Amino acid sequence: MKIIQQTETLQKWVQQQGANTLRLLVPTMGGLHQGHLSLIDLARQKADQEQREAQVVVSLFVNPTQFGPNEDLDAYPQSLQRDQELCEQHGVDLLFAPSPDQMYAHDASIKVSESLLSSVLCGQSRPVHFDGVCTIVSKLFNLIQPQVAFFGEKDFQQVAVIRRLVRDLNYPIEIIAGPIVREPDGLAMSTRNLNLNPQQRQQAVVLRQSLLQAKQTLDHDQWSPQPIKEQVREHLASASLGRIDYVEMVDPQTLQNLEQAQSSILIAIAVYFGNTRLIDNLYWKQPTAPSHENL
Amino acid sequence: MKIIQQTETLQKWVQQQGANTLRLLVPTMGGLHQGHLSLIDLARQKADQEQREAQVVVSLFVNPTQFGPNEDLDAYPQSLQRDQELCEQHGVDLLFAPSPDQMYAHDASIKVSESLLSSVLCGQSRPVHFDGVCTIVSKLFNLIQPQVAFFGEKDFQQVAVIRRLVRDLNYPIEIIAGPIVREPDGLAMSTRNLNLNPQQRQQAVVLRQSLLQAKQTLDHDQWSPQPIKEQVREHLASASLGRIDYVEMVDPQTLQNLEQAQSSILIAIAVYFGNTRLIDNLYWKQPTAPSHENL
Repeated sequence: MKIIQQTETLQKWVQQQGANTLRLLVPTMGGLHQGHLSLIDLARQKADQEQREAQVVVSLFVNPTQFGPNEDLDAYPQSLQRDQELCEQHGVDLLFAPSPDQMYAHDASIKVSESLLSSVLCGQSRPVHFDGVCTIVSKLFNLIQPQVAFFGEKDFQQVAVIRRLVRDLNYPIEIIAGPIVREPDGLAMSTRNLNLNPQQRQQAVVLRQSLLQAKQTLDHDQWSPQPIKEQVREHLASASLGRIDYVEMVDPQTLQNLEQAQSSILIAIAVYFGNTRLIDNLYWKQPTAPSHENL
Repeated sequence: MKIIQQTETLQKWVQQQGANTLRLLVPTMGGLHQGHLSLIDLARQKADQEQREAQVVVSLFVNPTQFGPNEDLDAYPQSLQRDQELCEQHGVDLLFAPSPDQMYAHDASIKVSESLLSSVLCGQSRPVHFDGVCTIVSKLFNLIQPQVAFFGEKDFQQVAVIRRLVRDLNYPIEIIAGPIVREPDGLAMSTRNLNLNPQQRQQAVVLRQSLLQAKQTLDHDQWSPQPIKEQVREHLASASLGRIDYVEMVDPQTLQNLEQAQSSILIAIAVYFGNTRLIDNLYWKQPTAPSHENL
């Protein structure tokens, strides 16, 4: 596995490849867990199926511009040595791990922003977050020039914003979203889970449980948004150490609030445990159609 | 010469080319004049000097997002048939001429913006202009994937913003700026000159003349910004049909106002004649160094 830390070296590496080389990018902020590894495995698998040369690239960069001033940038778990080993074990061809000064000039002044999909859900409590995401992902796309990029569905809103970025800026890149990977007790894998204390960790299972309860209600043809959101809120409130950020039922395409029932629904939730903010979501489709998520 | 109007067709055209193919892009809004053609000639010349395959691409798109609500989008001169002939005569390989609905989805929500260089000069009177420029240029870069792109120095600020875009978003693209091309009486070539009536056209020579007078003052070692700007303003005021938008002396790198003399200076001016806004500039360097512009 090749490791590159300089943007110039990376650009040369890309230039040296043939026009036929497929590059598959898995952007991460490090702190790799099974969720990331499942995306890397998807990329590796797709690369191995190709007749042509294919390179699996993982980027590892804790992007400061997607953290607000009061967020957990400094507390974000980092483990470069371990991440490197995991990438090697999972067949990554190139690990791009730049330092912040490699990625942002002191007088950087260009920003990529999204104004519709990012104004709701996580965007409400994290106002600069998706601008930071759109900007860093554009930079990674331009540096690495992948034909395929992988993102996790735990960050459902992020996937929607990235797809919009690709469409509206005409990036010739296919976005593949990997399903949420969960701990045995159902908690969605997240690097931030490491920042939970044992009691918080135990209570954090309410996120998934409240979503499963909502799914049952939906499966029983009770689709009315208000009572379901209320039910989820009540369930989440049973975690004494948690503080609800939001509970929303939205259209999976537009991410706008549902006033009425429809055949596909996204329930998205965010809960603080101390300074650690956890998110989870459930994509629900009317049972006649095959379900998007294997439960 | 190939003509493409659909983004999908364009993407396929790019994909079919080898990794070694050089693409040289001249982005325009049509209404081609000698200024544009000089850029196309620069691109053609550079392409012909290459050992490898090289394609000169001209884009022709009057980008609505870089016009403010009270600006001259509807009055912007268009002449597709003539532009097409000129491109053919000047050895263009591909003309990309999309319609607005090809370039912007009805729910487009991604914007690329620049916050430092674009807050001054034209950015003050045209607040949405450079966001529109950054967004459309990013789209053209992603669609056409040029290794070289050409812009005219009449739009000095635009060149600075585009260079910043390339640096901050890590586009692997070389930006080449072509010198201002002028009418015999000194007026900088501009598609908007077509919108001047005969009297306005006659008076419009004051832009260049006032800059040449300022150059003389600078050449005589009188560098103090305030008197020079005053001198330019007085000269411009002699055009009874003109209305000054701005007269500025700035650092050519940062575009920030000069309080003191320095060895290189940009004087930038903008003047309205009716609804037509004309710009011009003079890049001045201390005579010991060779001058940037051939006068």
